[in-house]
Amino acid sequence: MNSVSMKLQADKYLLMALQEDITYEDVSANAVMPEGRQGTVELLCKQDGVIAGLDVFARVFTLLDEQTKIDFFFRDGDCVKAGQRMGVLTGDIRILLSGERTALNYLQRMSGIATYTREVADLLKGSKTKLLDTRKTTPNCRIFEKYAVRVGGGGNHRYNLSDGVLLKDNHIGAAGGIANAIQMAKAYAPFVRKIEVEVETPQQALEAAEAGADIIMLDNMTTAQMKEAIRLIDGRAETECSGNVTKENIARVLEIGVDYISSGALTHSAPILDISMKNLHSIE
Amino acid sequence: MNSVSMKLQADKYLLMALQEDITYEDVSANAVMPEGRQGTVELLCKQDGVIAGLDVFARVFTLLDEQTKIDFFFRDGDCVKAGQRMGVLTGDIRILLSGERTALNYLQRMSGIATYTREVADLLKGSKTKLLDTRKTTPNCRIFEKYAVRVGGGGNHRYNLSDGVLLKDNHIGAAGGIANAIQMAKAYAPFVRKIEVEVETPQQALEAAEAGADIIMLDNMTTAQMKEAIRLIDGRAETECSGNVTKENIARVLEIGVDYISSGALTHSAPILDISMKNLHSIE
Amino acid sequence: MNSVSMKLQADKYLLMALQEDITYEDVSANAVMPEGRQGTVELLCKQDGVIAGLDVFARVFTLLDEQTKIDFFFRDGDCVKAGQRMGVLTGDIRILLSGERTALNYLQRMSGIATYTREVADLLKGSKTKLLDTRKTTPNCRIFEKYAVRVGGGGNHRYNLSDGVLLKDNHIGAAGGIANAIQMAKAYAPFVRKIEVEVETPQQALEAAEAGADIIMLDNMTTAQMKEAIRLIDGRAETECSGNVTKENIARVLEIGVDYISSGALTHSAPILDISMKNLHSIE
Amino acid sequence: MNSVSMKLQADKYLLMALQEDITYEDVSANAVMPEGRQGTVELLCKQDGVIAGLDVFARVFTLLDEQTKIDFFFRDGDCVKAGQRMGVLTGDIRILLSGERTALNYLQRMSGIATYTREVADLLKGSKTKLLDTRKTTPNCRIFEKYAVRVGGGGNHRYNLSDGVLLKDNHIGAAGGIANAIQMAKAYAPFVRKIEVEVETPQQALEAAEAGADIIMLDNMTTAQMKEAIRLIDGRAETECSGNVTKENIARVLEIGVDYISSGALTHSAPILDISMKNLHSIE
Amino acid sequence: MNSVSMKLQADKYLLMALQEDITYEDVSANAVMPEGRQGTVELLCKQDGVIAGLDVFARVFTLLDEQTKIDFFFRDGDCVKAGQRMGVLTGDIRILLSGERTALNYLQRMSGIATYTREVADLLKGSKTKLLDTRKTTPNCRIFEKYAVRVGGGGNHRYNLSDGVLLKDNHIGAAGGIANAIQMAKAYAPFVRKIEVEVETPQQALEAAEAGADIIMLDNMTTAQMKEAIRLIDGRAETECSGNVTKENIARVLEIGVDYISSGALTHSAPILDISMKNLHSIE
Amino acid sequence: MNSVSMKLQADKYLLMALQEDITYEDVSANAVMPEGRQGTVELLCKQDGVIAGLDVFARVFTLLDEQTKIDFFFRDGDCVKAGQRMGVLTGDIRILLSGERTALNYLQRMSGIATYTREVADLLKGSKTKLLDTRKTTPNCRIFEKYAVRVGGGGNHRYNLSDGVLLKDNHIGAAGGIANAIQMAKAYAPFVRKIEVEVETPQQALEAAEAGADIIMLDNMTTAQMKEAIRLIDGRAETECSGNVTKENIARVLEIGVDYISSGALTHSAPILDISMKNLHSIE
Repeated sequence: MNSVSMKLQADKYLLMALQEDITYEDVSANAVMPEGRQGTVELLCKQDGVIAGLDVFARVFTLLDEQTKIDFFFRDGDCVKAGQRMGVLTGDIRILLSGERTALNYLQRMSGIATYTREVADLLKGSKTKLLDTRKTTPNCRIFEKYAVRVGGGGNHRYNLSDGVLLKDNHIGAAGGIANAIQMAKAYAPFVRKIEVEVETPQQALEAAEAGADIIMLDNMTTAQMKEAIRLIDGRAETECSGNVTKENIARVLEIGVDYISSGALTHSAPILDISMKNLHSIE
Repeated sequence: MNSVSMKLQADKYLLMALQEDITYEDVSANAVMPEGRQGTVELLCKQDGVIAGLDVFARVFTLLDEQTKIDFFFRDGDCVKAGQRMGVLTGDIRILLSGERTALNYLQRMSGIATYTREVADLLKGSKTKLLDTRKTTPNCRIFEKYAVRVGGGGNHRYNLSDGVLLKDNHIGAAGGIANAIQMAKAYAPFVRKIEVEVETPQQALEAAEAGADIIMLDNMTTAQMKEAIRLIDGRAETECSGNVTKENIARVLEIGVDYISSGALTHSAPILDISMKNLHSIE
Repeated sequence: MNSVSMKLQADKYLLMALQEDITYEDVSANAVMPEGRQGTVELLCKQDGVIAGLDVFARVFTLLDEQTKIDFFFRDGDCVKAGQRMGVLTGDIRILLSGERTALNYLQRMSGIATYTREVADLLKGSKTKLLDTRKTTPNCRIFEKYAVRVGGGGNHRYNLSDGVLLKDNHIGAAGGIANAIQMAKAYAPFVRKIEVEVETPQQALEAAEAGADIIMLDNMTTAQMKEAIRLIDGRAETECSGNVTKENIARVLEIGVDYISSGALTHSAPILDISMKNLHSIE
Repeated sequence: MNSVSMKLQADKYLLMALQEDITYEDVSANAVMPEGRQGTVELLCKQDGVIAGLDVFARVFTLLDEQTKIDFFFRDGDCVKAGQRMGVLTGDIRILLSGERTALNYLQRMSGIATYTREVADLLKGSKTKLLDTRKTTPNCRIFEKYAVRVGGGGNHRYNLSDGVLLKDNHIGAAGGIANAIQMAKAYAPFVRKIEVEVETPQQALEAAEAGADIIMLDNMTTAQMKEAIRLIDGRAETECSGNVTKENIARVLEIGVDYISSGALTHSAPILDISMKNLHSIE
Repeated sequence: MNSVSMKLQADKYLLMALQEDITYEDVSANAVMPEGRQGTVELLCKQDGVIAGLDVFARVFTLLDEQTKIDFFFRDGDCVKAGQRMGVLTGDIRILLSGERTALNYLQRMSGIATYTREVADLLKGSKTKLLDTRKTTPNCRIFEKYAVRVGGGGNHRYNLSDGVLLKDNHIGAAGGIANAIQMAKAYAPFVRKIEVEVETPQQALEAAEAGADIIMLDNMTTAQMKEAIRLIDGRAETECSGNVTKENIARVLEIGVDYISSGALTHSAPILDISMKNLHSIE
Repeated sequence: MNSVSMKLQADKYLLMALQEDITYEDVSANAVMPEGRQGTVELLCKQDGVIAGLDVFARVFTLLDEQTKIDFFFRDGDCVKAGQRMGVLTGDIRILLSGERTALNYLQRMSGIATYTREVADLLKGSKTKLLDTRKTTPNCRIFEKYAVRVGGGGNHRYNLSDGVLLKDNHIGAAGGIANAIQMAKAYAPFVRKIEVEVETPQQALEAAEAGADIIMLDNMTTAQMKEAIRLIDGRAETECSGNVTKENIARVLEIGVDYISSGALTHSAPILDISMKNLHSIE
């Protein structure tokens, strides 16, 4: 994760997560270790997958103590195998114990998302269709989860309601039609925004393309309808469809020739990747 | 969720989550609706499950506009069926649109956890063994996730490192033995804390019980070892084992007679429950 | 200003501004008015201009006391004349006194920007060229200043470094050329972002257009060069030039036929519009 | 700017300003520079003026990355000429790009205020009359703007409503007269506060002086009235008048012999000083 | 306490204090009261004293629940007797229980300070000497404690290092003498600040008076020295001495004729006033 | 104080306390010292007592300037005598001046609590009865005050309403009896919580013990009643009584044989320990 994003956004979340886990002190550690003591511990992978979030993991410990030393043997995006040693941490044992859970909670979740995204993205390899995430992220974890999607090989859809325009049926209804909605959005939104419209029939897709939509989302259409919509759009706008891609339906999806597939499951349903810290021992 | 917890803790997270989704404005909504307009929308269940987080869902909208009216037809803990209308929201359409994603992201996740917890808890019905969560929660979502576990029928283990003592091998090593560690913890920790110790053999379990541990966690033991440990502890401490309970291994777990089973999966691996807001329309 | 933006972003700034002006109490008001007392005061325009920020002005007072009643006789975007009564406030006199300076500091600045923007935008009337702001805003006032630009008839360029892509010479150098930079940006940026490139010669403009740039900024070119660049771009991208539009050079700018002109002066050099609160008197 | 003020107050504003400009990442920089790279860039003056805010400018970059090295060839208060190189920055190019706009927004504004203040202050040279700022500062920029006034040769009036007492007509009305108001303020305010009263006639000035006012502000008086007021005050209080000093009216102002002139224009109407960062290039 | 100070400063501290006492929920209350229930409770005085902080006490409960109704039978500054019923609270019993400790912690401390201040201030009655507090307040409680001093009949010295100038030996040493220090302070500090100097001999007091000090603090002098210092100052500056006033030394202090006595003990050593909430019962 | 607690909790309070004392700058220091200058100052004890809070004292200065060097000749818990030099600070004189009051306010208060606690704890020496604090701490100072109690030889009761269960008469009333309340608390509270019940008669104590209370607080009982209660409890629960222990009543308290005595006075009535910074001088 970029150091600017870490300083300006991630640090705040990491500090809050640590405070969530330590209201006033780590009673267990402080009870048995009244004084600091140098120690070392290993980061172990317990499941095959794609690793994401190593910088975030490390930052949890350096926020607690700048002296903590963390060496990784992998980089974000690398494939890891169950049993592999992914890194070594050296520092005050109490710091290693107090930060462990928070750091792992981030790393496991981010790696889980990267792993799941990689699996789905691989299914699309060789096609023109690209995989995207959505705004169905865990509250207050978006910056971490969207980064993990990218590490896994997916792309990011808009970050939030402020930096992308997506006109759905309610917007269209309020504006009095597709063409009106697009025109109002172009007039109102910063001119650097692309205008995306969600349509439900090939005819609406045509209307959107003619009205100058930059991106057209094909919602709830059959395969035949989607193909017809793409034919009518005729390259005047990019196309997106939403929904899960599975081994079973992959052939059909690729055949449609849509530009993008977005999937909420990447961030809301990816199981964690099992990772742990093991073999902590004193080195004094 | 209790109104005191909502005011003192949850509000801060909900506001941050809204700010995460709206950096400066909801461009799409504001483009087509320059003025407010009253509307109504339904909350629909798209999957069978246990609902949790209705207060949180509602609070997202009232934080944006106190005038938003939200009526629910269910309460937290109720079973819902795919297709059921769970509630109706009435208010400024722009508020309904701007809060939708954040509110659903919470409700889906919390209901997913409650649903998954209910399934596992049901497997333990009729036994003395109770199901517990862990600290493997999503960063900055613990207050919501632990609440959802309770709604689903599970119990809460310690909230964080400050309000519970759990002595693991590293603590024991630092203290120079199980008895020492327990003694140090009793001397140091606020006297209202129970002292829990993690042991790996029946002999260690005996040692912990004799040293006055309140709770003994049986880690990495075979079924036979766990039974032997419980026999040696002989009611002097509560017992806990950690790990997933499945339909396949349930018989074996119940037979052991342990007091508590804790499961990280309740919070880190529960899939979301699919819920959506539908049929938004103007009522002016 | 939209109520969602007010709640989620503006409130924080307004509260901080009030705290900047009142460290612990308004000593003068509290010294002579130990008890609250209802009063009324008028909002007076002392200079001709375009008004912007009425909601912000009002919010300062309702943040201090929800009971404060504020009636306006104008709306944002209206032209006001020196001497006109713009509104009336009624409430606890101490609230009216304590909020006065902070509320006026916002209203004067926002109205100054709207007024200045209107003047410049009027010069462009009848042409295809639209006026835009920049990121040269006052720190921690961007949400207010960009809103004021829109009230004045200008449009908003990107809000910040996260929601728009603008590739300058340094980015192009790092990427090894215009085409490379555009390709890297398309691969990396969320697909809803338009890609803007800054070029210094017509030949570069052509290169950018061919590489698929969505917007091309013509930097430091002569009028002749700009015309040539626009000819070479040939409608494949939108065009923007940066710099001040004055009565003297307006004819030349319009003749170029560029799509957008952006001007930092709208936000960093607009003088305030003189507005004051007058005739405060007790109504008890 | 003093390092204590920087740590305790300015840092918060600088961080917020950076977050205002970077919601989650600098997309343009990160797209073309996946890895850090050392570079250098110059700080160039594009207009003659007085420089103010170099520490603030530098702090923006060191907040992003402590390793950034910044060398200045001038100090706050120095006169700079268009075309002069004012400093050199060396560090990760992405840091230099991401901090540029925020750092310049502060430096340009602060230097603009210092430049404008110097011009006005120079008009008062040789007289006993000193120039002061007001509370008409940009919201959430007061600490920077009042510092810039001092760099430009002006003095600071009260910082805010808590640390200075200024009794205006409304306060006087509430207290039932000038003498009453002064007495109430002396009884209520911390005894380290001077008591300032705003009066509109020479007679009121006399009354204020006799009641023990420390400072008397002469509001809306003619030159003759002000002279008469100062004669009646007879050294028992300091005197202040408010309003713009221009080359045209300077002779008249100096002739009055008032102690202080306060001017809101110093902070609300000073145009920025044009400064830019140029010649960024890699040094690896 | 003034409502503006409450909104802008006190609310933040009260909320933090509540969060300090309730990390995630009030377990005891929620365990036995799953649903809200209306109740009433009395505020009882258990010791004679001067009451201060009733608004703060009430605000703790309305921050938790705006519906809580609080009626007081006394006002800040009133004398209360052990056994008197000071007020009645009505609302959700869980709110009454959850806010009790935090609200009482404030009220007891503030009333303790008011009580102690009243006692000391009464000793000075009839003399010209006034009692002042100092900056020796409890961290993050200054706004409450300085208010309580005023309620008790004392006056406030400077609020903090920003709003008052006090030149001590170190400042004088750095400036190269008393006259220099005063001159530098007058040149640097906002002109609304009085300049106070701490001196240790009558000769220094004379020097300070001649150099234009507004207030002279007589430090570590004998009674005779103080009298001599006041004689030499001869009304050109106000005088202050620091230290505890007791029944034993009161006669001597009054005889000196100093204008102000400041006492850190008012805020750092006042014992609390014992107050409790009693007779909570359900009213449903 | 543990470095994790310092980073995650104390830093926030220390920074706020510094901001409370320095709104925008230390005017006195900056007036006479426009540039930094190295100096040294001693920390002197002016009263006999037990020192607590040295880390907190030091942290105030390093938060202002990491370069400040602080050497202590004592450790928390040591006895100090009036006149002893406790430490030496070296750094920028302006930092030493600006941090002095805030740092001392913490150190004096914490040492006062440690000193008072030590005195009371010493009275209990040789008995089985241990001394505890309560939640009657100064708002927003609990982490510091509970630490100081431990330094003084006392133990900590629950930290707050979230991490301990204490069922009082109101809870018992709401639950419909002691046994019910205990059962509800066991069912609701995290299983790591001990359940404490407050009882007013020996009979209630028996009922609580039989219902499985972990701790029983004997409230408002005579010595004879307490003895009877302890006899009836018969080791099934720990016992606590609340109230001040004095030299006069100590024999009686020890005779009762209660396990714990809790005392609010430790934190709300301990006078400060007088400590000051002296002999500041330049070392350049």
